[in-house]
Amino acid sequence: MPPTITAFENSPDRGKGQARDMRLRWALEEVGQPYDVRLVSFTAMKQPAHLALHPFGQIPTYEDGDLALFETGAIVLHIAERHAGLLPVAPSARARAIAWMFAALSTLEPPIVELTMAMLFERDSSWYAERLPMLQDRVRTRLGELSRHISGADWLDGAFSAGDLMMVTVLRRLNTSGLLDEYPDIAAYVARGEARPAFRRAFDAQLAVFNAASRS
Amino acid sequence: MPPTITAFENSPDRGKGQARDMRLRWALEEVGQPYDVRLVSFTAMKQPAHLALHPFGQIPTYEDGDLALFETGAIVLHIAERHAGLLPVAPSARARAIAWMFAALSTLEPPIVELTMAMLFERDSSWYAERLPMLQDRVRTRLGELSRHISGADWLDGAFSAGDLMMVTVLRRLNTSGLLDEYPDIAAYVARGEARPAFRRAFDAQLAVFNAASRS
Repeated sequence: MPPTITAFENSPDRGKGQARDMRLRWALEEVGQPYDVRLVSFTAMKQPAHLALHPFGQIPTYEDGDLALFETGAIVLHIAERHAGLLPVAPSARARAIAWMFAALSTLEPPIVELTMAMLFERDSSWYAERLPMLQDRVRTRLGELSRHISGADWLDGAFSAGDLMMVTVLRRLNTSGLLDEYPDIAAYVARGEARPAFRRAFDAQLAVFNAASRS
Repeated sequence: MPPTITAFENSPDRGKGQARDMRLRWALEEVGQPYDVRLVSFTAMKQPAHLALHPFGQIPTYEDGDLALFETGAIVLHIAERHAGLLPVAPSARARAIAWMFAALSTLEPPIVELTMAMLFERDSSWYAERLPMLQDRVRTRLGELSRHISGADWLDGAFSAGDLMMVTVLRRLNTSGLLDEYPDIAAYVARGEARPAFRRAFDAQLAVFNAASRS
């Protein structure tokens, strides 16, 4: 039995691969593991059956035999620890790849989410024009530091790893912000991630779900 | 040689144990490992020597022989993987403890930081009164879900783990917000964490650094 992940029945990103099931799909494709998908509605996500899997009522979750996991980062790490292809074997390089996973989720994603949420939900507020540059500058600070680190390299630390997978999916959230255009080396890094065959397969799979939902 | 961590020379939290070195100190105390501390100034954090350790110019870092790590979550996980006391041995329970580490950092901490940063830096803005309830409600949503999960239990998932260590330190950021008073079971959970001897030793160690700095 392959593991089962959950994904939005009707993703609010309209199939752009921004929902977090994309991260699991990509990880599973990189390591060549088949998986099943169970689609959940926004209503079902807050019901007891789903809350038993995910205490915060979100997607994705991961079920494999007796193991039920939540939190995208933990699931990607779990997959990466059990299958070759997403973490180096050498202990120090492995620890650094995991550090980049946490950097993507703890250092990059929060200011990026804050910016993109404001762009979605506070655009009509009286303070939007004044706050927007502050939110953009917080993201620019991190992008500048990341750009300095990645300069001249294909990936964050040697070969492609789960750290890159997480970082690329976090940076893709900026697609509509215009900020990636200011950092050509980061835009090229994201494009390198998106060009990987495993990314393409994962992207197509989540897009197929959205297209089927919008036809029904 | 014990590992060396970095911490603020003069912590902006005035010794309240909110800086992220507290998380490493607590983890190292839980597993009974001695450590050295190198203090860094805000200026030094942005210089090449420190940026070589931490691409985003923050504390803490962790150096142990040839290994140099950044990102608090990655360092706590590294410590927990190498010493008994912070992760269950059974694979499924271990994976769930790691999921709670990610939940603390990815699901709880971002809205908590957004609220506490606004309380610090946007208090005098024209929009503060209007935005504050929205930020508080985002945190309340997560606290409500956490409260429902933890109800009646001492820790998040069985015995105390690195997931609890991370969650308690994230929740402590709400100390001045008043929100923990609305969730007595979460306040009791945080107090249980703070009552652990390893927490007390770690707290006293970081407070001693702040007191020495403020006397000099």
